[in-house]
Amino acid sequence: MPPTVDSSSQRAVRWYPPSYDIRVETVAIPEIEHPDDAIVKIQLSGLCGSDLHVYRGTGRATEPCIMGHEFVGEVVALGMSFHSSSSGRPHLYSKLRVGDKVVSPFTVSCGECHFCRVGFTCRCVESRLFGTPATPGGQAQYVRVCRAGGTLYSLQDIPDGSSLADSSLLLLCDILPTGVFAAFQALSHAKIQPFTTGQPYPLGSSLSQVGDVSFLPFLEEDQLLTMAVIGLGPVGVCACIALLDMLVSRKSRFNVIAIDPNETRRAKMASIYAIICGNQPSGEFQVADINNGKEVVASLTNGLGCNAVLEVVGNTSALRLAYDLVRPFGCINSVGVHSDHAVPYKGVELYNKNVSLDFGRCPVRAMFPMALELLLKRQDVLGSVGGETSLVEKIVGFDDAAQIYDDFDKGKCGKVLFDPWK
Amino acid sequence: MPPTVDSSSQRAVRWYPPSYDIRVETVAIPEIEHPDDAIVKIQLSGLCGSDLHVYRGTGRATEPCIMGHEFVGEVVALGMSFHSSSSGRPHLYSKLRVGDKVVSPFTVSCGECHFCRVGFTCRCVESRLFGTPATPGGQAQYVRVCRAGGTLYSLQDIPDGSSLADSSLLLLCDILPTGVFAAFQALSHAKIQPFTTGQPYPLGSSLSQVGDVSFLPFLEEDQLLTMAVIGLGPVGVCACIALLDMLVSRKSRFNVIAIDPNETRRAKMASIYAIICGNQPSGEFQVADINNGKEVVASLTNGLGCNAVLEVVGNTSALRLAYDLVRPFGCINSVGVHSDHAVPYKGVELYNKNVSLDFGRCPVRAMFPMALELLLKRQDVLGSVGGETSLVEKIVGFDDAAQIYDDFDKGKCGKVLFDPWK
Repeated sequence: MPPTVDSSSQRAVRWYPPSYDIRVETVAIPEIEHPDDAIVKIQLSGLCGSDLHVYRGTGRATEPCIMGHEFVGEVVALGMSFHSSSSGRPHLYSKLRVGDKVVSPFTVSCGECHFCRVGFTCRCVESRLFGTPATPGGQAQYVRVCRAGGTLYSLQDIPDGSSLADSSLLLLCDILPTGVFAAFQALSHAKIQPFTTGQPYPLGSSLSQVGDVSFLPFLEEDQLLTMAVIGLGPVGVCACIALLDMLVSRKSRFNVIAIDPNETRRAKMASIYAIICGNQPSGEFQVADINNGKEVVASLTNGLGCNAVLEVVGNTSALRLAYDLVRPFGCINSVGVHSDHAVPYKGVELYNKNVSLDFGRCPVRAMFPMALELLLKRQDVLGSVGGETSLVEKIVGFDDAAQIYDDFDKGKCGKVLFDPWK
Repeated sequence: MPPTVDSSSQRAVRWYPPSYDIRVETVAIPEIEHPDDAIVKIQLSGLCGSDLHVYRGTGRATEPCIMGHEFVGEVVALGMSFHSSSSGRPHLYSKLRVGDKVVSPFTVSCGECHFCRVGFTCRCVESRLFGTPATPGGQAQYVRVCRAGGTLYSLQDIPDGSSLADSSLLLLCDILPTGVFAAFQALSHAKIQPFTTGQPYPLGSSLSQVGDVSFLPFLEEDQLLTMAVIGLGPVGVCACIALLDMLVSRKSRFNVIAIDPNETRRAKMASIYAIICGNQPSGEFQVADINNGKEVVASLTNGLGCNAVLEVVGNTSALRLAYDLVRPFGCINSVGVHSDHAVPYKGVELYNKNVSLDFGRCPVRAMFPMALELLLKRQDVLGSVGGETSLVEKIVGFDDAAQIYDDFDKGKCGKVLFDPWK
């Protein structure tokens, strides 16, 4: 089958409302519409768990759209803003060239507004999510990227990037930075600092200047960090890998409990753990079913509960389980995509346990360096396609798109990538 | 009136179920019941906003109880645990003596369990709240303090403590540390760090090692911290004082907006601000009504919203307002005492703004050094009784207790202390 019908048209995976309707169609190749635009020829695009919100019709879209918010490709056209004299703008406006290889975060970020400057790039004032009616996605042969000088990463900026396969680079668009964000957010919370420093809360106060507060010293067991990850889909696996890598790197003593109802996912995560931490004595790792997660945590912590829980599912039962697992002064870290449901907590419950909660999506553009560092370091578990411990299960052509969406929605397959030229 | 009827009885303020029933009665003086107990002769006790939960019958108490969880006094009896050879226990077990002056947090903490060792003292596994049926409170002439070697603060440990009036020391039992905790918790959150350091999120990552992320540099306006405090009761005023003191000490550029429906409270807070920051050019302070809080914040921040909101009320409308005021990647810090109401947020709302939330009561025992430092430093606003800017409005005897509870419940008076010997 020829990749395109003529020089102005391309093949793309389109969703039709109201739900569960995926069609591969021939549509126009996008063109530069604004001086800040780039056109990217797609080399690989990903199918992500959050695509299912649109697929199932729970994403509020009412018009057809080209799906996909993960893509790696090559720049084939640039707007007028891209020239060497674009000083005072994000550096890609003066450096990006036609022919450059790029990776994109799942949302557009201008790189110039307050939120971008401070690193909260996913809340850019011009934020747009790829794969929605207003912003056609990457499950196509070509995609238009707005604000491309703030949004794209160029592989020219990645010293060791050329060693990475496209299927590895694609993990940088969403799932790996999101996992790193979840782990980093949990470990950087102020309430976790006593466990990593061995100094009692409030760390950073002037305790020694104003008298002995007569705490007993920390015991060895007080510095044992117990963390749970709820959900072992691709993002959950990335969160586990990031968390384990950070804990091992810091030489923290830890218990990590990875919880998912799916036996296959649990077995895969256990295999990945064996690769990452096989001969590390500093921690314990267990997988658990939804039904025995509480008992596993209770028995590992003498009834105390988890210091932090990473919620990577995005529904009320996962939030409820997170509360039940967390100990007083613990943190719940939710990177799951939530919908209109009410948060399932009473005020008195949060008060009585001094719970902290962090919600929201990953600022991929800002987390990129940390995620890339992990990707380069952990090619043993992030670098292969189709193996027993691989994050990426297979790479298929668009002809299989409708079936793959159906399988993915029903939990019959893991992470799948599309090669739009296959 | 004689202070006690005979040597074994005392006067105490007791609440009777179901609600709004305060009686001053003659009851037995408590005695040592456990080797870790102390008996404290009360010099001053406080009436606190959270006493109103019991008073109004919303605190689940079904039996009468002696009220009050704030008290300063003198040790008159000690259990068998208190002797110089109590090594390996919190230091007061070997140092506290009959005749010592002490201050107590509003809850008992053993000083020996995991939560006490790491500084989360209000979640001690043996935690008990004074002023409840199981733990008679401090609105009496004498009180029994369990786990006294872990719970009490001795003024012997406070180098400059002798300069402080009892009415100042009493602020250390609850409201001042709770205000300090709210301000400290907000400013120590990982999402606030970019604004205090001038480095984009994720601070602490290895950005420079793995390539240029091409953010534009911080502008001066990016480091302007905008914080709101909702509720200007005594704890809210303490939170404002702590927050302003921390911001001024750090030389942060700031906007602080203090919100309360009560005009008298707003005027008092404005006067206190003038004393603290009169000639400090590093920030702006405004008071606002509930109805115009949003507009004030929007106009001060060009529509961005607050970096952090301190919620010091404890109901759903305050939590709702906090959400409306906070910007994306902002923090809501709730030290209000919440009841059975559901948290008034949808999952998608918290996801869409990347909101962080910190709930719960202050670990007073751990926050004591920071609170004491502020108390000593800010005697100008924390040291007087009865003035226009005083936190403590008056000191009364028990004969006025029923009337004072009624006035306080109706917002007709501010912070009132009881002298049980008056």
